[in-house]
Amino acid sequence: MKEYQPISYMQTDVTGGFWQRKQALIRDVTIFSVRDRFADTGRFRAFKFDWTEGSDIPKPHFFWDSDIAKWLESAAYLLQKAPNAELEAQVEEVIDDIEAHQDETGYFNIFHTVAEPENRFRIRDHHELYCLGHLIEAAVAYFEATGRDRFLRILDRYIDYVIRVFTVERSAGFQTPGHEEIELALIRLYRLRGDKKYLDLAMFFLNKRGNTDEGLTDWANGSYNQSHLPVRRQRTAEGHCVRACYLYSAMADAAKETGDEDLLDACRALFRDIAERKMYVTGGIGSSHCGEAFTIPYDLPNDTAYNETCASIALSMFADRMKLIDLDSKYADVVELELYNGALAGLSLDGKSFFYENPLEINLADHTRHTSVNDHDRLPITQRLEVFDCSCCPPNVTRYFASIGGSLYSASDDAILVHQFMESTADVNGAAIRMETNYPLDGRVRLTLQGARGKQLLVRVPGWCQSFSFSAPYTMQRGYAATEVPADDFTLEIDFAMEPLFLAAHPAVRADAGRLALQYGPIVYCLEAVDNGDPLSALTVDVKGEAVAAYDPFFGANVITLPGFRAASDLLYAPPGQTRQTPVSVRFIPYYGFANRGESDMTVWFRPAASK
Amino acid sequence: MKEYQPISYMQTDVTGGFWQRKQALIRDVTIFSVRDRFADTGRFRAFKFDWTEGSDIPKPHFFWDSDIAKWLESAAYLLQKAPNAELEAQVEEVIDDIEAHQDETGYFNIFHTVAEPENRFRIRDHHELYCLGHLIEAAVAYFEATGRDRFLRILDRYIDYVIRVFTVERSAGFQTPGHEEIELALIRLYRLRGDKKYLDLAMFFLNKRGNTDEGLTDWANGSYNQSHLPVRRQRTAEGHCVRACYLYSAMADAAKETGDEDLLDACRALFRDIAERKMYVTGGIGSSHCGEAFTIPYDLPNDTAYNETCASIALSMFADRMKLIDLDSKYADVVELELYNGALAGLSLDGKSFFYENPLEINLADHTRHTSVNDHDRLPITQRLEVFDCSCCPPNVTRYFASIGGSLYSASDDAILVHQFMESTADVNGAAIRMETNYPLDGRVRLTLQGARGKQLLVRVPGWCQSFSFSAPYTMQRGYAATEVPADDFTLEIDFAMEPLFLAAHPAVRADAGRLALQYGPIVYCLEAVDNGDPLSALTVDVKGEAVAAYDPFFGANVITLPGFRAASDLLYAPPGQTRQTPVSVRFIPYYGFANRGESDMTVWFRPAASK
Repeated sequence: MKEYQPISYMQTDVTGGFWQRKQALIRDVTIFSVRDRFADTGRFRAFKFDWTEGSDIPKPHFFWDSDIAKWLESAAYLLQKAPNAELEAQVEEVIDDIEAHQDETGYFNIFHTVAEPENRFRIRDHHELYCLGHLIEAAVAYFEATGRDRFLRILDRYIDYVIRVFTVERSAGFQTPGHEEIELALIRLYRLRGDKKYLDLAMFFLNKRGNTDEGLTDWANGSYNQSHLPVRRQRTAEGHCVRACYLYSAMADAAKETGDEDLLDACRALFRDIAERKMYVTGGIGSSHCGEAFTIPYDLPNDTAYNETCASIALSMFADRMKLIDLDSKYADVVELELYNGALAGLSLDGKSFFYENPLEINLADHTRHTSVNDHDRLPITQRLEVFDCSCCPPNVTRYFASIGGSLYSASDDAILVHQFMESTADVNGAAIRMETNYPLDGRVRLTLQGARGKQLLVRVPGWCQSFSFSAPYTMQRGYAATEVPADDFTLEIDFAMEPLFLAAHPAVRADAGRLALQYGPIVYCLEAVDNGDPLSALTVDVKGEAVAAYDPFFGANVITLPGFRAASDLLYAPPGQTRQTPVSVRFIPYYGFANRGESDMTVWFRPAASK
Repeated sequence: MKEYQPISYMQTDVTGGFWQRKQALIRDVTIFSVRDRFADTGRFRAFKFDWTEGSDIPKPHFFWDSDIAKWLESAAYLLQKAPNAELEAQVEEVIDDIEAHQDETGYFNIFHTVAEPENRFRIRDHHELYCLGHLIEAAVAYFEATGRDRFLRILDRYIDYVIRVFTVERSAGFQTPGHEEIELALIRLYRLRGDKKYLDLAMFFLNKRGNTDEGLTDWANGSYNQSHLPVRRQRTAEGHCVRACYLYSAMADAAKETGDEDLLDACRALFRDIAERKMYVTGGIGSSHCGEAFTIPYDLPNDTAYNETCASIALSMFADRMKLIDLDSKYADVVELELYNGALAGLSLDGKSFFYENPLEINLADHTRHTSVNDHDRLPITQRLEVFDCSCCPPNVTRYFASIGGSLYSASDDAILVHQFMESTADVNGAAIRMETNYPLDGRVRLTLQGARGKQLLVRVPGWCQSFSFSAPYTMQRGYAATEVPADDFTLEIDFAMEPLFLAAHPAVRADAGRLALQYGPIVYCLEAVDNGDPLSALTVDVKGEAVAAYDPFFGANVITLPGFRAASDLLYAPPGQTRQTPVSVRFIPYYGFANRGESDMTVWFRPAASK
């Protein structure tokens, strides 16, 4: 079960290209923009614990601890790569605040200290353990960045208190948290510190979930927060997508640590249910705003898609963990899908604004279409915002992209696995690896390895890739091209042929029937009316026409043009031959770049022109 | 302006075929089923005026008077064709009740007498004048059936009271009714009795509408009930569809009676806005349940379509009036569309149950798809019901189909116009006409006229008809084939070629992009999963394949089969070439017959198979 070890973001450096630019944006712009909006909204101030009823500062929300915790974690990842006194001082100040306001029991929670102390550990959905989980992740990252363990020690006291309240005294008002996160955080801490009490507490929460009555009277018989069945018996992804994938991530971690085959089988089934039945072509998950949740298989409406940015990140986390258990390129394929699409769409190109929901289609008129009455269906917003009331996504974006180096490699005793492709350097268990590539602009990758002689080198062949060249003899192993490293100094040249890949959805996906999506390399494309005119429904694309891919600095990636047609008619209904078709050039932009040039209709799924 | 006179249902008899069967169903089944459900729910009992707070009989609703009024009107149409002592006695009993409970002022309204007397004429949306309008229509029809004017005399006292309160004392709490109907009813009464006070009161309400402040603080600045602009300045169809089309019907009537060109121009523009931008291919109107309303042009979603049965009837009423003003077959085309599709779908094949909403697509899974949470969008029901809380549609269906003979002909001094095709006999201003046809099973029509020598005979060529034969020389006049009747005895043979007609929607209708609808003769078709399997989105139809039309007694019309394909795939996303296509026979049933064999997915708009 422990065959593959992760290679941490600490062991890798993204040194150029697409992802170096994105990481620089996170480091130079996004981290500070999120900080400033969190300051504006009172989230940092809340750590002073000076809110009282009637005071003129904003009342803390019970999830604010976690918003700042994810920001701290993000800052730590940046500090691990480069010193920044301003960031470090701000992190230390928050740690000071936490230390100052931790109570004698070890407990720390802003809302349930200043606003509702009587409800400490009484309301299952009040996110105390979720907040603790994120604080743990921040403390681990900060320790990794600085070697200082004050934050960890503070939280250790809190964890001891949680162990006592939940597992010994059993005095809490619930047995498992309404929003998962603590479980994966505890296992992460266990891996850092080796103290089994952390793993035991994680397993306590995992084993209790779905084995109690709690949650069963909540929405959908407990499936909203995955409390409907014991976790080992869960086979279909249900409920709130972020909660679900944080849970599944913890289950994968636990399976890896304990060798629990039942847990692992559940993880495998859950991943399949998502990736084969419930995932948008962009990697988005959450077909409904209602419960921010999975729905039934193949139910993937485009315009009302919820697809929370955090859910894409959470699915990437789950997939990234599964690749450490089973050799199968489908896991890293999903990570790649999120990196370039589902998760990346959550961030504006200028690095300052965020989508909470990421639809695959925008029809602006729908937002005002009830000219007679103003009660249209709930639709995702059409422009990114700098901060939300529920602003979980912005600091999730920063921590995710600040640490993506950790998704590049994994290793076993005799193998090095290459999962993602970025201009980078890495130390993989003593082997020095240099990866040179313009990916995702083209598919050429040069890998130079030093000190890996005799090891198996497994390089993922991306799922989108229809043909590739490999400069060494290789065999295919579950989606990976495998070759033995023949020398201490070894250079491998790979070329994944990039060409337009048209995708059709499963016939049961009604929203996509008769439509295609365009992928070019790892990037999924979309059409915006700002390029292609209104209405987008009148466009068809000649998929057999000549596709031209050209680098566009605004998007930082290729933009693709294809010939197509725009339909026009004078009649509401007429035989199809009476519709006029005007040849047009159709411009596809990367999906992650939509809504960066003002409000516009947008669609990922377009109609192919009828064959001649 | 008075060029064309209507030829009343009293002058025509439907003697066989499709419509004779439907009228027999109304006469033998539906009228009694509606009556019994209205009795069950206390609607007849309410006319005893014995409800009091705390009593154990149902509290009357403020629109119950109108429900029974439409039932009385329906019964009158049936009595005009054939005696029925049971029906007649029941009508007389209700008239007795009305007479007994009319107060000394002349006022009659159940709710505002027994429940809220203090709010008499104070609440604009409480339907008192709407109820009066329907009572007037019932009284006119009953007079036409029996020659007895007691009911008319009762209402005349009420109308005098309305004239006094609204136009003299101006003591009512509003100036125009929230739900139109009184206007067209008063003009109908004016045409029967010739007393100008009825026309004047109708014109009072029409002229006031949109010229006051009232309604402007309601939904959508008064457009919900067409109070946003003076009626002569209205150019786009807005708001609640039934209210709108009852208003437009009255405007057309008023324009015809007064020669008011501004009013007529408004009617023409409103009709175009509906028929060219806001009408479903079935004739349904009302794109949104929200406000039961029109929305913006080309916004015609299929699964959430509201398409109230009453709205189809109301649009048919409007169109049927417009054909008396302008010679243009587009008006009778819309009437035909409603007869066979939009309105007829509202009635079950067994004559007992009704749809209030008539969607063009049903996806059953959407009704339960939030397996995680139970708050799905509002969707139309999927099976007809015998009665509703708001049960306006059932008695509207009965009165509409019981009187459809009135839609067949119109006339001018020197012309006879044939608008609809049914096996029937008629007396058109002294000319005896016999129409023999199997329409809509085929397009052959034989017209035999006696006593029409020298008149122009204008026969509508249906909009769906691509070619036809006509046994006499003819010229085309705005969609009508015109010939001079050469002899006292004249027989004309017409054959409208019926073949599958595939229709595409305007490219701006997003819901229908890439899809086609099938019409065969006047009947629009649909696919049901009960015939074609799930999911319907996986089907494509070879529109160039051989279509077989075969009479199906269950539906009473042709069922059409075409070759097609069912797609299948093992993958959620894959290049389109990897989708397997299995040849299948696709079975289309008349749209009006959907949901008569249990719950089933259904769609009107299907995808054509890719050309080979």
